[in-house]
Amino acid sequence: MARIVQKYGGTSVGDIERIKRVAERIKGTRDEGNELVVVVSARSGVTNELLARARAIHEHPSERELDMLLATGEQETIALTAIALHAVGVDAVSYTGGQAGIFTDAAHTKAKIKTINARPIESDLLVGKVVIVAGFQGINEDGQITTLGRGGSDLTAIALAAAVKADKCEIYTDVDGVYTADPRVVKDARKLNEISYDEMLELASSGSKVMQSRSVEFAKKYDVVFEVRSSFNHNPGTIVKEEVAYMEQVVVRGVAVDKDQAKVIVSNIPDKPGSAGRVFRALADAGIIVDMIVQNIGRNGIANLTFTVPQGDSHRAQQVLDPVFKELGGGEVAIHSQIAKLSVVGVGMKTHSGVAATLFETLAARSINIELISTSEIKISVVIEASRADDAARAAHAAFGLDKL
Amino acid sequence: MARIVQKYGGTSVGDIERIKRVAERIKGTRDEGNELVVVVSARSGVTNELLARARAIHEHPSERELDMLLATGEQETIALTAIALHAVGVDAVSYTGGQAGIFTDAAHTKAKIKTINARPIESDLLVGKVVIVAGFQGINEDGQITTLGRGGSDLTAIALAAAVKADKCEIYTDVDGVYTADPRVVKDARKLNEISYDEMLELASSGSKVMQSRSVEFAKKYDVVFEVRSSFNHNPGTIVKEEVAYMEQVVVRGVAVDKDQAKVIVSNIPDKPGSAGRVFRALADAGIIVDMIVQNIGRNGIANLTFTVPQGDSHRAQQVLDPVFKELGGGEVAIHSQIAKLSVVGVGMKTHSGVAATLFETLAARSINIELISTSEIKISVVIEASRADDAARAAHAAFGLDKL
Repeated sequence: MARIVQKYGGTSVGDIERIKRVAERIKGTRDEGNELVVVVSARSGVTNELLARARAIHEHPSERELDMLLATGEQETIALTAIALHAVGVDAVSYTGGQAGIFTDAAHTKAKIKTINARPIESDLLVGKVVIVAGFQGINEDGQITTLGRGGSDLTAIALAAAVKADKCEIYTDVDGVYTADPRVVKDARKLNEISYDEMLELASSGSKVMQSRSVEFAKKYDVVFEVRSSFNHNPGTIVKEEVAYMEQVVVRGVAVDKDQAKVIVSNIPDKPGSAGRVFRALADAGIIVDMIVQNIGRNGIANLTFTVPQGDSHRAQQVLDPVFKELGGGEVAIHSQIAKLSVVGVGMKTHSGVAATLFETLAARSINIELISTSEIKISVVIEASRADDAARAAHAAFGLDKL
Repeated sequence: MARIVQKYGGTSVGDIERIKRVAERIKGTRDEGNELVVVVSARSGVTNELLARARAIHEHPSERELDMLLATGEQETIALTAIALHAVGVDAVSYTGGQAGIFTDAAHTKAKIKTINARPIESDLLVGKVVIVAGFQGINEDGQITTLGRGGSDLTAIALAAAVKADKCEIYTDVDGVYTADPRVVKDARKLNEISYDEMLELASSGSKVMQSRSVEFAKKYDVVFEVRSSFNHNPGTIVKEEVAYMEQVVVRGVAVDKDQAKVIVSNIPDKPGSAGRVFRALADAGIIVDMIVQNIGRNGIANLTFTVPQGDSHRAQQVLDPVFKELGGGEVAIHSQIAKLSVVGVGMKTHSGVAATLFETLAARSINIELISTSEIKISVVIEASRADDAARAAHAAFGLDKL
């Protein structure tokens, strides 16, 4: 008998038929004698519908009221999932985030989990009930409903796994696991059997959409081993865990492409001390996340700054920088949206040299121009022309032998 | 400055545009300097949609999980209403039933309010906020979400009005108030300016759909004066309150027709002591509400029982009685669905005689046959053929001068 936390995303519980299938799957795990806590998201589309209603009333709805509103999405799913379990003869009970003892700070729409009081869940597990918990939500100290922001349901599952000391945490989604590259782009992409937290984090920040970084960070911090797998079949997925020695034998674990970036070129700002600081402070104050920064000084003492931002923020970046240029006495912005960030990730890079050289040679052999480069201990990212991104991903995937592992 | 509780039903908050209109109306009351607690229902149709989803999964969904599910309907409306108030510059905050301190017993789907802790609401009123409360729901002592059953949102409003010692309680609905008869049937029906609790109760149990009896009973018990009025115009509605002397000057206050009844004739049961008791005990155990009972003993010592039940229960009544007949050694059931109950109601009847005579003469003059009669201190009900009900209502309305008040 094991204690298992399972999480089913919005697509997995997207309609009545899918909820019934999830119930059958839960019953299967239960019938093997396991204790089960199940975290579910809102049905896919519901959260966006609710948001649209709120925004039809007010351009900037109150974040407290948004949380009140959005929390109904998961509350509907937990009730329907519990009812579906009853229909197949499984004793089950649903919990809102607050009832599950998930206490957060007061930062509505992006709350952080502070503590979990798992006692109510533990009592129900002890009497043999399957406990269904609403993902994405909690309450703060004042009893106000809060939501955890993007990727919140994964976080709920991983935090609950830590709180109830689960033997396993399974994140069910609509993909089979973590791949060496996006299988829609790279035909030979293979599913990884396992991956380290750090690699998963670098992939998450490099455009792989499987999971948000914060859930992986939480799992790493509390040492929660979890498996990403599909709710639509019974194939084993990818296990995410602390890195172990043999993982380093594989130099590159995966290739990720992020097309959702724009390159911002700031030129002709006077090269005074603090100019760059003013630029990035203004962007940070506007909540714009800047990646991959390069600065170079021209002959005439005029600095150029190049960096990437999420494409949706590029227009706002321009607006934010205009007053800064006035203040500094010069500067202009050019934005290139037709770019992509290609990253290769692997803990093995720490002990192997030549990864960067192989990547650059591979791209050069295909006449793909590298516009920006950034590296971490276990990742190399390059910015290239968007139209060449898929081609580059396939070439890099082959160059590092990812099709053959 | 007054402290006012307003309740808006599902039709009044049926879509985004209507929620915005409700917000404007609330703002109007707020701008007059009043303190405001607003109770809202789920958008019309939402509760039925949710029920349909649950029943598509399980024929008899768990009542605890139904409450978890249905409570989302009002939770959505409170958030949207608060957001709509913010959009028109009114400081407002939404509360679920539990957050509003509405504690109930543990009878899921038909919970009774036990106590209300109004302190959180009072604090928000003191700092000038409009408090929006989810109708129809509360929590029990274990923190489980409960719902109050049919008419629950009205009950929430009246109970809150008692708890916060409101000066006024306004029940907004899609009709202008309480009428002397159903205006769709009786053209001359007039809106009543006021009515006593007891008259309202008798009308509610006589097929008038304006409000459920339990809310009126609660208001009577805690002496909450409330007004039933339309959210679609600014006409004054009907004030429901304790009867005062001058109310008795009006003998008949209104005429109600209930077509949702069936007549059950139980014949040929042996006339032993306790036979009738066994029949009604069996119906009561099955939760079937019996109205208007008549018993007569035939010459041969065989008893006939005639009574009415809600039409939806008539088939089940038959099933429940079959084993009773076996036990008693005889009996059979006939069901007539094509009947209607016509009631005339008025506190003035207590001090005026001749009401029954006038009613019977009026119906006789139109050759409408009376099948059953029952009376209370302030009501006379007769069962007649369904096809004659509208005609009878018009005749009674005129006979008691209700078109002229």
